[in-house]
Amino acid sequence: MADQTRPTTREQCAEADRNDELAVLRDEFALPDGVIYLDGNSLGALPRAAVARAADVVTQEWGTDLIGSWNKNHWFELPLRIGEKIGRIIGGGAGECVATDTTSLNVFKALSAAIAIQQEDVPARRVIVSERENFPTDLYMAEGLIALLDRGYSLRLIDAPEDLADALADDVAVVMITQVNYRTGYLWDLADTTRLVHDAGALAVWDLCHSAGAVPVRVAADGADFAVGCTYKYLNGGPGSPAFIWVAERHLARATTPLSGWWGHKSPFAMSESYTAADGGRRFLVGTQPIISMATMEVGIDLHLSVDEQALRRKSLALTSLFIELVETRLAQHPLTLITPRDEQHRGSHVSFRHPEGFAVMKALIANGVIGDYREPEVLRFGITPMYVGFADVWDAVETLRRVLDDELWRDPEYQLRGAVT
Amino acid sequence: MADQTRPTTREQCAEADRNDELAVLRDEFALPDGVIYLDGNSLGALPRAAVARAADVVTQEWGTDLIGSWNKNHWFELPLRIGEKIGRIIGGGAGECVATDTTSLNVFKALSAAIAIQQEDVPARRVIVSERENFPTDLYMAEGLIALLDRGYSLRLIDAPEDLADALADDVAVVMITQVNYRTGYLWDLADTTRLVHDAGALAVWDLCHSAGAVPVRVAADGADFAVGCTYKYLNGGPGSPAFIWVAERHLARATTPLSGWWGHKSPFAMSESYTAADGGRRFLVGTQPIISMATMEVGIDLHLSVDEQALRRKSLALTSLFIELVETRLAQHPLTLITPRDEQHRGSHVSFRHPEGFAVMKALIANGVIGDYREPEVLRFGITPMYVGFADVWDAVETLRRVLDDELWRDPEYQLRGAVT
Repeated sequence: MADQTRPTTREQCAEADRNDELAVLRDEFALPDGVIYLDGNSLGALPRAAVARAADVVTQEWGTDLIGSWNKNHWFELPLRIGEKIGRIIGGGAGECVATDTTSLNVFKALSAAIAIQQEDVPARRVIVSERENFPTDLYMAEGLIALLDRGYSLRLIDAPEDLADALADDVAVVMITQVNYRTGYLWDLADTTRLVHDAGALAVWDLCHSAGAVPVRVAADGADFAVGCTYKYLNGGPGSPAFIWVAERHLARATTPLSGWWGHKSPFAMSESYTAADGGRRFLVGTQPIISMATMEVGIDLHLSVDEQALRRKSLALTSLFIELVETRLAQHPLTLITPRDEQHRGSHVSFRHPEGFAVMKALIANGVIGDYREPEVLRFGITPMYVGFADVWDAVETLRRVLDDELWRDPEYQLRGAVT
Repeated sequence: MADQTRPTTREQCAEADRNDELAVLRDEFALPDGVIYLDGNSLGALPRAAVARAADVVTQEWGTDLIGSWNKNHWFELPLRIGEKIGRIIGGGAGECVATDTTSLNVFKALSAAIAIQQEDVPARRVIVSERENFPTDLYMAEGLIALLDRGYSLRLIDAPEDLADALADDVAVVMITQVNYRTGYLWDLADTTRLVHDAGALAVWDLCHSAGAVPVRVAADGADFAVGCTYKYLNGGPGSPAFIWVAERHLARATTPLSGWWGHKSPFAMSESYTAADGGRRFLVGTQPIISMATMEVGIDLHLSVDEQALRRKSLALTSLFIELVETRLAQHPLTLITPRDEQHRGSHVSFRHPEGFAVMKALIANGVIGDYREPEVLRFGITPMYVGFADVWDAVETLRRVLDDELWRDPEYQLRGAVT
């Protein structure tokens, strides 16, 4: 795709789809007819093979094999086995990543582990730096941890990526950043930023919710300390599928967790009276995991592992660039403001525009078969998932948006009603 | 069942099954042929209707309705709707119970909320009392919280229920007890114990893992402060289905949580920068829940709500009493020691015997079609789930155990190998 001229007609888009080596992946997903799905960054589509996997885990593994499934069907190993696969996707090493719980909880685990390490090494550092525009739950979890610790920790929020350097005073213990911003799609350079953080004496906790599976990530090679993220967006794990937490090998021995449940115990079935952490990332497991959701999610992870991530990235950028160009050329008369970086180095896999009537516009767009998302304030957000979105899809989506805006379909009072977007 | 003479032959057991008004419930479950399943206290059996529910949530709700399911199929409401139903099962009021996360995590939430309340009211109290024989993860979570707080909290463990009164000195903030012990099946009187705890100035956190769905529970009427528990045992929610947390109405306004994620925020989609707790039990939600597991689990909860719990309790006691009598009369020559209370007032819904070769015996028993469980040390544990276990099942299970012991089948070297029991 790299040296291909951007398509400027629908026919050229269809041609680009015919030439797309990744187009066959679309058949791996069960998407409804008549819908262009641009919300895979909120809930990834259903891999066809996940239907059989879910049925098997319910009927055979639960129903027939019953309690024996913990061993026979390796339920005990799922958080490790799937965590290992996610680790490969984000560039982590063996035993460093587990699939478990939710991103919010894993933020708590990563932050408290990072703080405990810094507490030993540089106890005077008591500031957590993050972005004001970070996904709120990351900030809320930090807030909860800070209040619980009750010993002078605080949160310092930056307003823009370029403010990070100034925020890195010698009181900073940890920097917690979401690599791709959920609203704007801004992509942080993980290597450069981590270097900056380390040079300032702090540790870097990365939230990869909108980057795992969306852009190539190399947590270990790029020096990250901790990473967390979800699996139900670009990894197509299913609604609310368990999240992940990764810990750099150099921290594994010292990375403790206050959420010290039996699944993270060195010998969970010895039923000993006190807690001894397991080796490796396994210590970040807490309690019994939701097996049906977890087993089903492995299908999406496996599918992702089978694909060339560089090719995915090239297609993602070609699609998001096309989307931006088509909106800006064909919908130029409408009050749409791009808030996603034009610079491909800083763009994740979604594109967002502000529109003063964004909420009603998105409802009208969805009613007309293009499923995007809405985020306060005024933001139309379009997830461009190269596994199942094509060039003609982008063309058609922009044309539908043009019709919604040209014909002012969004003025329908039904679309103005606040409440659910979808 | 109450005034019925205990059956003493297989024919009388079969007769008791024919007279059992609850026997029809067995057809609601998809249990494999040729197996007597006495491990429903570890993983409850599969309700037949859960197969279709799981398929629907995967194929229709995820695959076709996609992101719209959060509203259209009420995914957002599942933790509240199902929590409300569990609340009814354990005797809680509206808005006090949510279904979410794991028991371990909910222990952490309940303990930290209880401690925060006591910190305000009686700050000098810094001891958490629990049982040495509690399920270990409850102790581990307390340990993690205590270490994180790092301000003089400690755990005081009692060795037997009768030691509780002595342990309740004026330094005790919280008492955390599992109502039915996972190993012995000892059932605490929730009302009496809570009164004792309150009289001593402490708060009571109850773990209902082995009692929710197994014995009638009345958390609100009996004065409990907090309760947590799992749904994959007697509530038949499926492997690792999300747990629950209940908070007494009088504590709701003050019950804070350090695990302050966006799902517990008053306005999660306002994307505000700081955390404001939602009203009611909803504040104990943290992150996005595993929807496939959670939606599927509702089938087991609904099934339970359709049954008369007093009738279930009568049948449970008739079955566990029968099991004890048959083992003690027909297997008297074998070194089996009952560790479950004979007193029905203090017996949950499982029966445990120690046997010096317990591990190998259980493996041999499972190989011969009776699925029980093994717990260190030496404990043969039999979950008696009145929804799908009958009187003839108990007879046949004891006869199989007799054959395993009489014929010393457990001496087979294969059964001696430590590792997985099942």
